[in-house]
Amino acid sequence: MQYLNKINSPKDIKQLFTQELEGLSEEMRTAILNRVSHLGGHVGPNLGMVEAIIALHYVFESPKDKIVFDVSHQCYAHKLLTGRKEAFLDPSKFYEYSGYTNPAESEHDFFVVGHTSTSVSLACGLAKARDLKKEKHNVIAVIGDGSLSGGEALEGFSNAAVLGSNMIIVVNDNEMSIAENHGGLYNNLRLLRETNGEAECNMFKALGFEYRYVAKGNDIEELIKTFKEVKDISRPIVVHIHTLKGKGYAFAEENKEQWHWNLPFDIKSGQNTLKFDGESYGDITAEYLISKVEKDKDVVVLMAGTPGAVGLYPERRAKLGENYIDVGIAEEHAVAMSSALAKGGCKPVYLVMSSFSQRTYDQLSQDLAINNNPAVILVFNGGISGMDATHLGCFDLPMMSNIPNLVCLSPTSKEEYLKMLDWGIEQKEYPVVIRVPRDVISDNQPQPKAEEFLNRYEVANKGSKVAVLGLGNFFKLGQETVKLLAKEGISATLINPRFYNKLDEETLASLKENHQLVVTLEDCVLDGGWGEKIARFYGNSDVKVLCYGAKKEFVDRVPVEELYKRYRLKPEMIVEDILKIIK
Amino acid sequence: MQYLNKINSPKDIKQLFTQELEGLSEEMRTAILNRVSHLGGHVGPNLGMVEAIIALHYVFESPKDKIVFDVSHQCYAHKLLTGRKEAFLDPSKFYEYSGYTNPAESEHDFFVVGHTSTSVSLACGLAKARDLKKEKHNVIAVIGDGSLSGGEALEGFSNAAVLGSNMIIVVNDNEMSIAENHGGLYNNLRLLRETNGEAECNMFKALGFEYRYVAKGNDIEELIKTFKEVKDISRPIVVHIHTLKGKGYAFAEENKEQWHWNLPFDIKSGQNTLKFDGESYGDITAEYLISKVEKDKDVVVLMAGTPGAVGLYPERRAKLGENYIDVGIAEEHAVAMSSALAKGGCKPVYLVMSSFSQRTYDQLSQDLAINNNPAVILVFNGGISGMDATHLGCFDLPMMSNIPNLVCLSPTSKEEYLKMLDWGIEQKEYPVVIRVPRDVISDNQPQPKAEEFLNRYEVANKGSKVAVLGLGNFFKLGQETVKLLAKEGISATLINPRFYNKLDEETLASLKENHQLVVTLEDCVLDGGWGEKIARFYGNSDVKVLCYGAKKEFVDRVPVEELYKRYRLKPEMIVEDILKIIK
Repeated sequence: MQYLNKINSPKDIKQLFTQELEGLSEEMRTAILNRVSHLGGHVGPNLGMVEAIIALHYVFESPKDKIVFDVSHQCYAHKLLTGRKEAFLDPSKFYEYSGYTNPAESEHDFFVVGHTSTSVSLACGLAKARDLKKEKHNVIAVIGDGSLSGGEALEGFSNAAVLGSNMIIVVNDNEMSIAENHGGLYNNLRLLRETNGEAECNMFKALGFEYRYVAKGNDIEELIKTFKEVKDISRPIVVHIHTLKGKGYAFAEENKEQWHWNLPFDIKSGQNTLKFDGESYGDITAEYLISKVEKDKDVVVLMAGTPGAVGLYPERRAKLGENYIDVGIAEEHAVAMSSALAKGGCKPVYLVMSSFSQRTYDQLSQDLAINNNPAVILVFNGGISGMDATHLGCFDLPMMSNIPNLVCLSPTSKEEYLKMLDWGIEQKEYPVVIRVPRDVISDNQPQPKAEEFLNRYEVANKGSKVAVLGLGNFFKLGQETVKLLAKEGISATLINPRFYNKLDEETLASLKENHQLVVTLEDCVLDGGWGEKIARFYGNSDVKVLCYGAKKEFVDRVPVEELYKRYRLKPEMIVEDILKIIK
Repeated sequence: MQYLNKINSPKDIKQLFTQELEGLSEEMRTAILNRVSHLGGHVGPNLGMVEAIIALHYVFESPKDKIVFDVSHQCYAHKLLTGRKEAFLDPSKFYEYSGYTNPAESEHDFFVVGHTSTSVSLACGLAKARDLKKEKHNVIAVIGDGSLSGGEALEGFSNAAVLGSNMIIVVNDNEMSIAENHGGLYNNLRLLRETNGEAECNMFKALGFEYRYVAKGNDIEELIKTFKEVKDISRPIVVHIHTLKGKGYAFAEENKEQWHWNLPFDIKSGQNTLKFDGESYGDITAEYLISKVEKDKDVVVLMAGTPGAVGLYPERRAKLGENYIDVGIAEEHAVAMSSALAKGGCKPVYLVMSSFSQRTYDQLSQDLAINNNPAVILVFNGGISGMDATHLGCFDLPMMSNIPNLVCLSPTSKEEYLKMLDWGIEQKEYPVVIRVPRDVISDNQPQPKAEEFLNRYEVANKGSKVAVLGLGNFFKLGQETVKLLAKEGISATLINPRFYNKLDEETLASLKENHQLVVTLEDCVLDGGWGEKIARFYGNSDVKVLCYGAKKEFVDRVPVEELYKRYRLKPEMIVEDILKIIK
C-alpha cells in the first residue's frame, strides 16, 4: 500500500501523477475487497467508482466542495480518501464504519443515506443554501443509472435543471441497477452511450442541463480532464460517465447482479464464506409464485428493482416470463400498477422490502386502498434487526396498518403464510398486505379458512389471568413466555392474532372475564403499532395491558440480541414484568 | 341545451357533426359553470378540457376503451357525457356526485383519484392486464402539465414507454400547474410548443415514446383527427395537446391561478358568493414569513405547487423573492431539499396540505429525520373534515408522529402557533412538524419557552378524578367538555399537550395520584395516533383511558358535524361516556 499509506485526506492525492493515481486505485480496490470479503457489503458499485472518486477528490476541494452520493453504497473509495482507511485495512475497526455516508464519521459526508434516488434533491438544497448565503463552491451529486428511475430522483433532476447556478450531477452509468435496468430512460442512456453522448435526443438536455459524456468512466486521466473543465461552472450540468460495475474483480465483472451486494466471501475463489442453509421465505415465495403462474396466467409478480433479495434470481424470473414485471427502482409506480392490474382482472403480487415500502405511503392509500383493489403486497424483512439505520424493518407495520381498507396479515408459520398468500391472490375483495415472517417455522397444523383468519384470533392455548398475544414473528416469543409462566404456576392464554389492521374485539372482550393482564408482542416500533390499539381497547376496563416492541428510534447496526435486551423482548424479562403486576 | 339534452352516454355523440359538437361544447361549459358557481370546484381545468374530452369520447369506445384521468379534477366534461348530466343541471343532485372520477358513479370511471401524478402508472396496470388477458382495447391516460413534475408520474412515463403495446398518454398542456409551473421539464414543453412539436430534443421521445403535437388543443376537429390516427396504435404514444385553461369563461382565462379552483361565485361578475371573513392561518403564516424573510435572508419558504391554498398569492410570493421556492408538484423533492437547505445553514419552512404530505413518508424519514436537520414542516388542513375521501386531513398525525426524531407540535392558539413557528425556524437541533390549527383563536396568553412546550404539557386547569387532554384543534373541545363536567360536579383537569411525537410521562404519571380517568381528544384517526400512546402508558396502571378521534375509514364528503356525532366528538356525548365510568 505504498500510495494509500500516505493518503490521509483528499489533499494528499493532489500532488500525485496519473500513474501514481492508477497505482493508488489498485491499492484501493484491494482495500475495498479486504473489507467486503470479511464483512460482506456492496462489491460491484464500489469497485466501479474508484477512478471517478479519485478524480473527483483530485479536482474538487472537499469538504468545501460538497459531494453527495446517491444510496451512498458506492462511497467506499470516498471513505478511503477521507481519513477512513482503517475501515478497510484494520479488521478490528471494520465495524466502526458503516457502508454508507455518515456525517458523524467525517466532515466529507453530508448526509446519512441508504435509500435510492435522493442525491440530486439533497444537492439542490445544498446548492440553493450556498446561493442564498452568497458562498462559492461546487455542489456535486453522484447518482447511478439504477437510481435514476426513482420518482424522487426525477423530481430532483427537473428542479436541478432550473437552479440557475453551479450544480454538477455525475451520472454513473454502469448499465445496471441492482439487477438489470427497466424503463424507457435506459433506452436514452444507451443511445447516448452509442453516440458517444452526441445524440440530439437527450433527456438531460431536454430538461435544460448542459451535458458531457465520458466514455471511459474508469480512466482517471479522462475523468480529471472533464471534472477540471466543469469545475466552477455557473450552470447545472450532467456529466454522464460510463463505468464498469465490479471493475478489477473478475467475478464481479462477470456476474454483476450477484456481486452488487454480497455476503462475506473468499477473494480467490469468489465463494461465500458465510452461507445461510435451509429454507428462506424468498425461496418459498418464489417457488410458490412460479408454480402459481404456471397454472394461472392472471397472476402477475411485481418487483421494484430488488429481485435477488427475495429469491427471484434470473432463472426464476425467466420462468415467470411475461407474468414478471420489474419496474426498476420505482416503488410508487409498482403499487399504483398493482392496484390497476387488479382492477383489470389480474392477480398482482408485489414483493417489497419493509424499509423500501416506506416510499409508497400515498400510493398504498390513494392508488390502492381507497380503490379497494385486490392486490397483494408482500413485505419482506419486517422486524427488529441489526441493520443500518436506513434499512430498518420496524416501521412498515405502523405505516401500513393505519391506512383504511388494507387487510394486514401476519402469519406465524410457513403453512399459515402460504394459506394466506394463496387466499390473498384468489380473493377479489381487499387489498392485502402480508408481513412475510422471518424464521421458517413449520407448524404442520391444519390451516383455518379466510373468514377465520381475517376476523378471529387463534386461541392457541386457553388459560386465565394472563393472556399473551404474539403477533407474527413474535408468536414464538409468546410461546416461550407462556411456557415460562407455567413454571411460575400461571396457566396463561396464548393467542396468534393473525391480522393487525383491526382487532378481534369479540375475543378481546371475552378475555375480560378471567384475565387481569394482556401482554402484546410485536416485531416493530410500538408507536402507532398494534399493541397500542389493544391498550386503547382495554382503556376503559379493568384489564391491564403491557405492550412489547421496539422503541421509536433509528438504531444503527446494533446487534439484534442487544436490541431484544434493550426492549425487554426476552421471555424471562417479560415474565418478570408480568409478575410485578400479577401478584 | 338542445344537444346536451340528447346525450345520455358517449355513443350519443358519435353521430354528431363537428358543428353540433361545437354547440355541445358550449352547452357543456354552461353546465360546468352552473355546477361550480353553485358548489365551488375546479373551474379552469374543466373548462380547458371540454373539447378534448368530447373528442376522446367521439373516437374511443368507453368503457371498453379505458380513459384514466390524472387528479381527475378535469373530468367534468367526461361526467357530462357519461350519464351524469344531473350533477351539473339539477341543483338537488349536485351533492350526489363528486368532483373526481369514481367507479361507484359510473362504469366509465376506473379509479377514485384526487392526488396528482397517478394516471400513467394506473393506466400501465390496465394496459398490462389487457395484454396478459389477450384483450384488445385502448388505454388512455390523461395528464396535465402540472402533474408531470410528480415523481410517480415520471416513474410511470419511464415504464409506460417500454410497455410494448397500446398506451395513449394525452398530455394536456395548458402552461399552468395550479399556479405557474416550475422545473426543467417545462422548458422542454415550451420548446415543443414553440417548434410545433418538431424539436429533436424531446423528453418523451427520449424515453422511447412516439409523439404527436396538437397545437390547437381546443379544436374538436383537430383533436378528433389526431385521436383517430392514434386509435388502436400498438405502441406507447404521447399526444401533447396545447389547451387554454379556463377556456370560454373570461375571468378564468384571465386569472388562471385564482380560477384553478374557486368557491361558489356569481357567473356574471366573477365575484365569490361565499366568502370567509376574518383571519386565516394561511394569511397569518404568509405575513409572518414575509416579515421574517425581510429580516433574515437565511429563511427560505418552500411549496410544492399549492401556494394559493396557504395564502401565498402572487404578490406575497413576489415579496419573498429568491427566498421563495416552488418546486412544482414534487413533494418528495421539497422535503429532501428542505433537509439539505438546513444542512447548508438556511432556515427552511415547507408548507404542505395534510393530505399531500402523505407523498413524503420516506423523505420525512430518510432525507430529513435520520439526518436530524432543522427544517420546519407546516401541515395545513390537518383534522377531520367534510372533504373528499382523497383529500382527508386525518392521517398526517399517525403518519408523521411515529417517525423517530421528528418533533411534532400542535398549537392551540394563534400566539402559541407563532411562538412555536418562530422557535422552529431559529433552533438548530430538530426537524420540526407543526400542525397548523384550523380555527384562529387568540388566547393572548404569555407563551412558554421552548424547553417547556417541547417536553411539558400545559395544565390549564388542575382538577381531580378526570383529566381531559385536548390536542391542538381539540383543546377547545376539551375546554367545553371540562365546562360541562363542572355542571356534573366534577372538577376535571384540563391539559394542552402541545406536542404529539412523545409523551410528557412526568405529568401523566402525576395524574395517577388523584385521577381515575384520562380522556384524550385528537383531530385525526385514532389508529396509530396520539391517544393510543396515552392508553399504552396507562396500560399497567389503574387509570382508565378513553380515546376520542376519527374512526379509520375513508369518509367521502360527509359533513363534519355528522362525523363529530358519529365519532362522539361532542362535549355532551363525551361527558355521557365519562359518567358511565366515573360513578
